[in-house]
Amino acid sequence: MLIDGKDSDQIAADDRGLLYGDGLFETLAVHSGEPQLWTQHMARLARGCVRLGIEPPSVDLLQAEARALCAGSARAVLKIIVTRGSGGRGYRPPAPALPRRILSLHPWPDHPAHWPQQGVNVRLCDTPLGANPRLAGLKHLNRLEQVLARAEWDDPDIAEGLMLDAAGGLVEGTMSNLFLVQGGRLRTPALEQCGVAGVMRGHVLALAEQGGIACEVTALGLADLRSADELFVCNSVIGIWPVRRVQGMEFMPGSVTRRLQQAIGDAVDA
Amino acid sequence: MLIDGKDSDQIAADDRGLLYGDGLFETLAVHSGEPQLWTQHMARLARGCVRLGIEPPSVDLLQAEARALCAGSARAVLKIIVTRGSGGRGYRPPAPALPRRILSLHPWPDHPAHWPQQGVNVRLCDTPLGANPRLAGLKHLNRLEQVLARAEWDDPDIAEGLMLDAAGGLVEGTMSNLFLVQGGRLRTPALEQCGVAGVMRGHVLALAEQGGIACEVTALGLADLRSADELFVCNSVIGIWPVRRVQGMEFMPGSVTRRLQQAIGDAVDA
Repeated sequence: MLIDGKDSDQIAADDRGLLYGDGLFETLAVHSGEPQLWTQHMARLARGCVRLGIEPPSVDLLQAEARALCAGSARAVLKIIVTRGSGGRGYRPPAPALPRRILSLHPWPDHPAHWPQQGVNVRLCDTPLGANPRLAGLKHLNRLEQVLARAEWDDPDIAEGLMLDAAGGLVEGTMSNLFLVQGGRLRTPALEQCGVAGVMRGHVLALAEQGGIACEVTALGLADLRSADELFVCNSVIGIWPVRRVQGMEFMPGSVTRRLQQAIGDAVDA
Repeated sequence: MLIDGKDSDQIAADDRGLLYGDGLFETLAVHSGEPQLWTQHMARLARGCVRLGIEPPSVDLLQAEARALCAGSARAVLKIIVTRGSGGRGYRPPAPALPRRILSLHPWPDHPAHWPQQGVNVRLCDTPLGANPRLAGLKHLNRLEQVLARAEWDDPDIAEGLMLDAAGGLVEGTMSNLFLVQGGRLRTPALEQCGVAGVMRGHVLALAEQGGIACEVTALGLADLRSADELFVCNSVIGIWPVRRVQGMEFMPGSVTRRLQQAIGDAVDA
């Protein structure tokens, strides 16, 4: 783990990331020592910093630290946290603030190897997502909703939980974004009110457009699940998992899902 | 600062309080070495732990640590953070988790001495509060909404900002709860969807009931501000600040506010 470039596993206890969740993070797949989709992750981090009013760390600096940490890792997960840094008591951001960066390397998760091919079972979570356009889309450190949702089940056969907003709209998985295919058209929930705009979500949308697959970012509900031909969840580490079952509904991994999995594999291996 | 009972200002960088805001906190006034409203703060902390599924720390242990830290302080602020403790990557709470406690002592804030007597100017914040009944009422560590709201102004003459929910309902201040008096009746927003159920808020309601003041916890909006006879904000450190001005509306500290200020002073000094 590198904290502000130094080898350490301790941070200042007055860090506003701890006090208020005042910061952002990125979770990257590492293949052969290389963090994947680096540019997209850095772009999202920069956008998040702008929205929270945090001075973004130098991308060159982050890249040098990430390379040092990932060197020699065949397959791992890199997590980058950027907080507003240390501060006194009180919500008001210190001025000037000295943002802190925390890079850590983690083992590749041991999800069953057949999940990408055969698909997964998912559930609907009871914990709703609160709406706030000021925070929507950001991968910020206020993640109690996801913690409570993920605590709802411990059946290892359930790979993910889908979360709804207060009005019952589909938003995302606890750790993933959600896509469905209806009549050959790729659809994913709009995230203007809540949810995390995942880097893999953006990548999938870009690849779909390149591949001539019609895409729609829109409000979706449970009725859309029922009428979907294909369903999948995705993030930067798991890639794409086709959904086989949710709430008694059954799906088969279809041609659009397979094309996108192929495209992601290509992009990741390129 | 005491971290799990040890003198330290560093915490493990894999603490879930940092990673996800997975924890709770309490902010207590300390007078003559004694944390005030201790029982109420411990009760709220315990309720929060139950709702987040965090094993609550021993109150005896917390009390011993708080006393050690506060000994000799004429006037200070004690902050107690309880997190779910260290954990790996991923939202799922570790089982078993080893919660971490972080106690820190801070200087008494240097708010102008005349604010409790003469009242304060407050503003309306643009940052809304998102609704989530699973988190409403808790003093948890996911406080980005308050950080963004408090960053909206830097005029030192504005003491506090009031926050609204998405529907325009009045909820609270960034660091305080809100009360208004209409026709001799004390009213404060219901916090079933969002907001922090402040210890001082509960204390004020209890004192008002003891004093024969009719109380109502209900939905309130901007129209209620306009028709209010008195308005005040409160928390455990500031006590009660009468509001003099908000959004061009002017108020005078009235008899109910004064009675409650007196009652709180009595209780605090008792």
